[in-house]
Amino acid sequence: MNNTKRGRLVVVSGPSGVGKGTVLKYVLDRDDFVYSVSATTRSPREGEVDGVNYFFITREKFENMISGGEFIEYAEYNGNYYGTPKFFVEKMLSEGKNVILEIEVKGAMQVKRIVPEATFVFIAPESIEILEARLRGRGTEQNDVIAGRLSIAEREIRSCLMYDYIVINRDGGAEDCAEDIVAAVKAEGMKPCNVYTSICDFFK
Amino acid sequence: MNNTKRGRLVVVSGPSGVGKGTVLKYVLDRDDFVYSVSATTRSPREGEVDGVNYFFITREKFENMISGGEFIEYAEYNGNYYGTPKFFVEKMLSEGKNVILEIEVKGAMQVKRIVPEATFVFIAPESIEILEARLRGRGTEQNDVIAGRLSIAEREIRSCLMYDYIVINRDGGAEDCAEDIVAAVKAEGMKPCNVYTSICDFFK
Repeated sequence: MNNTKRGRLVVVSGPSGVGKGTVLKYVLDRDDFVYSVSATTRSPREGEVDGVNYFFITREKFENMISGGEFIEYAEYNGNYYGTPKFFVEKMLSEGKNVILEIEVKGAMQVKRIVPEATFVFIAPESIEILEARLRGRGTEQNDVIAGRLSIAEREIRSCLMYDYIVINRDGGAEDCAEDIVAAVKAEGMKPCNVYTSICDFFK
Repeated sequence: MNNTKRGRLVVVSGPSGVGKGTVLKYVLDRDDFVYSVSATTRSPREGEVDGVNYFFITREKFENMISGGEFIEYAEYNGNYYGTPKFFVEKMLSEGKNVILEIEVKGAMQVKRIVPEATFVFIAPESIEILEARLRGRGTEQNDVIAGRLSIAEREIRSCLMYDYIVINRDGGAEDCAEDIVAAVKAEGMKPCNVYTSICDFFK
């Protein structure tokens, strides 16, 4: 019998420029958190390793997996499929790891339908002005590209109320923000509905 | 204008012998947590300080406060009143402190009616057998007293499902248990309904 406490699926969204990467790097420094590895039909780029960066699979295999209901969510971008295979998430959860799935709002709502017991976390900026300054600070994009991103960001941010937890990534606060996410996942595990296996003897 | 983030009222229950005192000592080591000071009509014992251990007040004053609805909860034991005055809790919350209110199950349900937004935490033992061993380990009580306490404990433990969070105080785990409580309080503050003042600008 496997006595390992099952991990939790943690779905994380947040607008472009909010600093998700830095925050999640701190979360993933912890032994009990792993990143969800996606499957894709695009070719590996130099240095990318199968099973680490992505599971690289053929279009035929991907479509078979879609038919078989083997994805938690999937989407097609630029002619390639990207998706979250159930088998990987399930394996990690059963080993007691919390699995971080970083995904945009629409994908998150797709996951909500299939894995309602997942924990949904939204990383928000302190303000739209600060988000705009960050996007401009990268200095690599044209004004109209930034305006487009901001407009998407504003729409995404308004979806934050659909998430279980909203963490605010303040300037220089990525580490605090990571701790907030860890606390939220811990707290989820302490809700009566999730403690049941530890306390069921009390109700015999 | 007061920009301090308001604290949370944290109601903590748990059966006799579960180790609440040790766990809460660790929680209260943190600057942002304070213990709720009760009012009582009993006389101060040697070394007890008014406003620290209790607010020592007259029976007349206590009954006036009852009439005025100035208690979050109160009860009478052995001919003396004990109660949690709203003014103290309110002052601490407005100063940004999380206020710990340690109280048995019935009192907690009284608080739930008056302060539904409080966070309710139940400290449970690993098992009834372990709780019994702890109660016997004190070595100060007769068998029938222990049996009575155990029976109350079992009934209280079955109320744990009414709490927001259940933390299990494992042997030697009081500090972990305290961290669980801190994480739960943190997570409460990240729920969309509680983040509103930080994010309302996004919905203008």
